[in-house]
Amino acid sequence: MEYDGTPYVGWQIQDNGPSVQARLADALEAFCGERVVPGGAGRTDAGVHALGQVAHFDLEKDWPTDTVRDALNAHLRPDPVSVLDCCEVGADFDARFSANARTYLFRICDRRAPLALERHRAWHVPRTLDAEAMHAAAQKLVGKHDFTTFRAAQCQAKSPVKTLDRLDVTRVGAEVHVTAQARSFLHNQVRSMVGALKLAGEGKWRPRDVENALKAKDRAACAPVAPPHGLFLVSVDYSA
Amino acid sequence: MEYDGTPYVGWQIQDNGPSVQARLADALEAFCGERVVPGGAGRTDAGVHALGQVAHFDLEKDWPTDTVRDALNAHLRPDPVSVLDCCEVGADFDARFSANARTYLFRICDRRAPLALERHRAWHVPRTLDAEAMHAAAQKLVGKHDFTTFRAAQCQAKSPVKTLDRLDVTRVGAEVHVTAQARSFLHNQVRSMVGALKLAGEGKWRPRDVENALKAKDRAACAPVAPPHGLFLVSVDYSA
Repeated sequence: MEYDGTPYVGWQIQDNGPSVQARLADALEAFCGERVVPGGAGRTDAGVHALGQVAHFDLEKDWPTDTVRDALNAHLRPDPVSVLDCCEVGADFDARFSANARTYLFRICDRRAPLALERHRAWHVPRTLDAEAMHAAAQKLVGKHDFTTFRAAQCQAKSPVKTLDRLDVTRVGAEVHVTAQARSFLHNQVRSMVGALKLAGEGKWRPRDVENALKAKDRAACAPVAPPHGLFLVSVDYSA
Repeated sequence: MEYDGTPYVGWQIQDNGPSVQARLADALEAFCGERVVPGGAGRTDAGVHALGQVAHFDLEKDWPTDTVRDALNAHLRPDPVSVLDCCEVGADFDARFSANARTYLFRICDRRAPLALERHRAWHVPRTLDAEAMHAAAQKLVGKHDFTTFRAAQCQAKSPVKTLDRLDVTRVGAEVHVTAQARSFLHNQVRSMVGALKLAGEGKWRPRDVENALKAKDRAACAPVAPPHGLFLVSVDYSA
């Protein structure tokens, strides 16, 4: 699924506003009359976008998958949520727990002038960032670590230890792209890491400062967290 | 200037709604108290975007150009219009008449599923297009021709003869990009040409059909015009 996270409280159903999960459940019910709550691979926060979210659900009837996709898209209108593809899976498949890797992209547009076209799709930083310095600092976070520093207070994960497989920073034209890949992430982990990398890009933090923040295992050592609207859930991998 | 054309009736001041030109004039007045109407290089239609529109205006006071840019951006908020850069020009400079070339990009997203993130930024065509066939057909339009077929009824240009310097069609991932370059264009010319190229991409028109439509010099020979929201004014060239 692809969605624009701007109008939602996030993927997950919440009491305080519209969620992507609720809209998908509504579309499913409108399509086939069954009330099922789809399970998602990544619980994107309010304002966070998806290019490749994955959700699973069980239906009583054995519908052709193309019919399910097209019917859901028809019933999702006019919301900015689109089902890109639909396929049948085994009974043991779970979008969240069967996933082997998740890839996120964080877009930063580092220029003086405000953003017009990409306003809700990238973080505007009004000075030029050193992408190479950011990449060097990022490598201090790759690997298996206790990411307590880069974890939201409300994070529900049992352990703060995660293995970060990839954290690449590259300049793409007038933007800086941060790509993060791991089996799973803590709540706000990517945005917290991007906040630290932004300081590295401004020359305010050296790679050693990022390393020290990690080693502190203390949320108070975290840089200001990057805003949600630059973050995209790009893909979820289920290969064995 | 960069802008999201979605909320505007177009670049030009009109009675029926907000225009980019009016918003810029308002920002200028709020900044320095002078009421001046800026002249633009390209009169983009309602819903058409700009990545590099150029406008000129005369002010009484000799402000530093960075001050003008930053003040305009402050007063343009919260509109999705951004002044990227500002510089001093000679008294004879005219954003429209001094331009030597204009470059437009038209984005088509050819996939079954509706667009969520790029909904107002690309034309959704729900079947795969043959970009190579589109490029071959496009070459029939390059050069100096009478573009009456590809001209809106309300076009105010004195002559329908224009020289199209470039019309390239390339596949860029899941999108087809049409890039058009000319000294100047007729009203709706790019969108009219893209409408014909879309038929070529679907296999409904051959290059000869595009050529015949051009030779007909008849608006009735035009394919359905492509929608405005896929079109971007990319840049305006003033080099000698």
